[in-house]
Amino acid sequence: MTDGVSDKRPVLGERTAAVIGTGLIGGSVLLRLRAAGLDVAGWDPDPATRRYADAQGFVAPDTLEEAVAGRDVVFLCGPLPSLPGTLSRVAAATDEHCVLTDVGSTKAQVAAAAGALGLGHRFVPGHPMAGADRAGLASASPGLLDGAAWVLCPTGSGMAAFRRLAALVIDVFGAWVVPMSAPEHDVVAALSSHVPHLLAGALAGAVQRSALREAVLALAAGSFTDGTRVAGGPPNRTANMLLANRGPVLTGLDAVRVVLDDLADALRAGDRATLTALLDEGRAARAAVRGRPFTAHRREFRAGVDHAGELAYLRELGAAGGHLTECRVEAGAVAYTGHLPGPPG
Amino acid sequence: MTDGVSDKRPVLGERTAAVIGTGLIGGSVLLRLRAAGLDVAGWDPDPATRRYADAQGFVAPDTLEEAVAGRDVVFLCGPLPSLPGTLSRVAAATDEHCVLTDVGSTKAQVAAAAGALGLGHRFVPGHPMAGADRAGLASASPGLLDGAAWVLCPTGSGMAAFRRLAALVIDVFGAWVVPMSAPEHDVVAALSSHVPHLLAGALAGAVQRSALREAVLALAAGSFTDGTRVAGGPPNRTANMLLANRGPVLTGLDAVRVVLDDLADALRAGDRATLTALLDEGRAARAAVRGRPFTAHRREFRAGVDHAGELAYLRELGAAGGHLTECRVEAGAVAYTGHLPGPPG
Repeated sequence: MTDGVSDKRPVLGERTAAVIGTGLIGGSVLLRLRAAGLDVAGWDPDPATRRYADAQGFVAPDTLEEAVAGRDVVFLCGPLPSLPGTLSRVAAATDEHCVLTDVGSTKAQVAAAAGALGLGHRFVPGHPMAGADRAGLASASPGLLDGAAWVLCPTGSGMAAFRRLAALVIDVFGAWVVPMSAPEHDVVAALSSHVPHLLAGALAGAVQRSALREAVLALAAGSFTDGTRVAGGPPNRTANMLLANRGPVLTGLDAVRVVLDDLADALRAGDRATLTALLDEGRAARAAVRGRPFTAHRREFRAGVDHAGELAYLRELGAAGGHLTECRVEAGAVAYTGHLPGPPG
Repeated sequence: MTDGVSDKRPVLGERTAAVIGTGLIGGSVLLRLRAAGLDVAGWDPDPATRRYADAQGFVAPDTLEEAVAGRDVVFLCGPLPSLPGTLSRVAAATDEHCVLTDVGSTKAQVAAAAGALGLGHRFVPGHPMAGADRAGLASASPGLLDGAAWVLCPTGSGMAAFRRLAALVIDVFGAWVVPMSAPEHDVVAALSSHVPHLLAGALAGAVQRSALREAVLALAAGSFTDGTRVAGGPPNRTANMLLANRGPVLTGLDAVRVVLDDLADALRAGDRATLTALLDEGRAARAAVRGRPFTAHRREFRAGVDHAGELAYLRELGAAGGHLTECRVEAGAVAYTGHLPGPPG
């Protein structure tokens, strides 16, 4: 938690927000927005959760429509299958000024639903990367998303909404905003999150089926404990995530299987050199997970008519592993501070 | 670290020990044995490591033979491929009273090597389950193995040596001694440790090969970070471990692949019910990793001639996920305190 963040007011002037679906993620968004000084309302389909939010001093009306009416920004934080329906209701209860976003773990489906509803200009698909091995508003914390990598999906028609939301999550959450197209996000998330859930489930499932289950659990090494951690999550939520990103997940799984086959072949052949070389490939990726250097740059675009150059810049930045830490719209221009992996020079 | 442990003297009277190979694990064994009041010597093939051990106040002679001569117990803590050769040298330099053990991550190969050397009566294959994502004596700590699950492999001819070693690691390390045959250990360790290394390597390797490598790393979720952690370890050490347990690892990998195929089939078919049920299987195993209840019992055996009953008890205990927390030889009888998973009654 960076205390400095909560003192900042969003520069672009979002003053009111609503959060629909106040579980772990939505509740944490609610807490942080309030700490940053925004006027926030929360709504959840569960009456007990609404009562809990009310008891915590939040504006927590009985209907979704009351919660979102007149708000500048609405975060949709419910389960993936609920998003298209919720989006339709929220859009109908808000005016054109109101920017909408979600926090779901896949983006193409909800982006398509928003397009079909004619909401592409004010819905910005979003995905903050945050741990979620707990659940519920009671587990939420204002710091849960601080400093998170936070995917936002810019489009040509939604550029103004993208800028407002990028500025908000940078200023309020200290987020690293990763701009990506919705389909590219899903391809990347398949490898960075969804396929790991499948591998964890397969490993834990094989142990569950083993005649030596108890002995395997007794000897669970760190590799097993780490490798099965997300298999402890709610099966419904994991299934929703996988089903909402079926194609990219199956493609990503195939890519992992190719390497797994290579490893198994080398092991079966007793080919130490190949086995070691394959393990060394993986070590290179693993070593880059933490501590990669980034080089900062600034880019400006006219805030006017043609967004093609700005959109291309943003999507290339995200595809290259980069992120934004500043987004300012002033005097008809937008200025970004971007960061790309790699040493300066 | 349990301070109480270091105050206890081993009841069965081992007073001198040597550790051969003083890296992370061997160094930690050395430190804990000294803290428990034993007279310990260390030896490592690397002269710089010997000088470091000497500077830490350990008896650290220049030759392996000097380090082990006259010792009650010798721990072999070098890399897996070195063990048969080291075992032969240590056996030649010690007398029949001296109990030998190792800490390698596979057991059948070294057990066979010991048998071929005629050392089955005084070599007890061992495997403490401890994290090893660091390396070297400088990273060692006396508490690294405290309370660890510690596999020891009893045999009919090696029962007296097993008892002495079980008593020692329980008294000095507060270990949960898991008695298992060497082949059964290897089958269990394949699933609880070795296959997870293959999965982590395959996931990290696929990302290394991906055109979107940088973006995947930028969005690395907890599932990815956890699922690839052991892929950051030394490729040589992982390759040694896998090659020393080839058959069981390939069999364990096949079992994981069966579940992975089931998961992929359900996902491809959009079969939510089957996908959720499969994920729920894995969750059941994962939930049992921590916090399983155990029920304690006591068993006594005549310390005399026929070890068949004692051996059967010990191996069944380990195969059922149980462990020992006490081993006492007194007045011609051996008494064990054992623990089996499951609630009392």
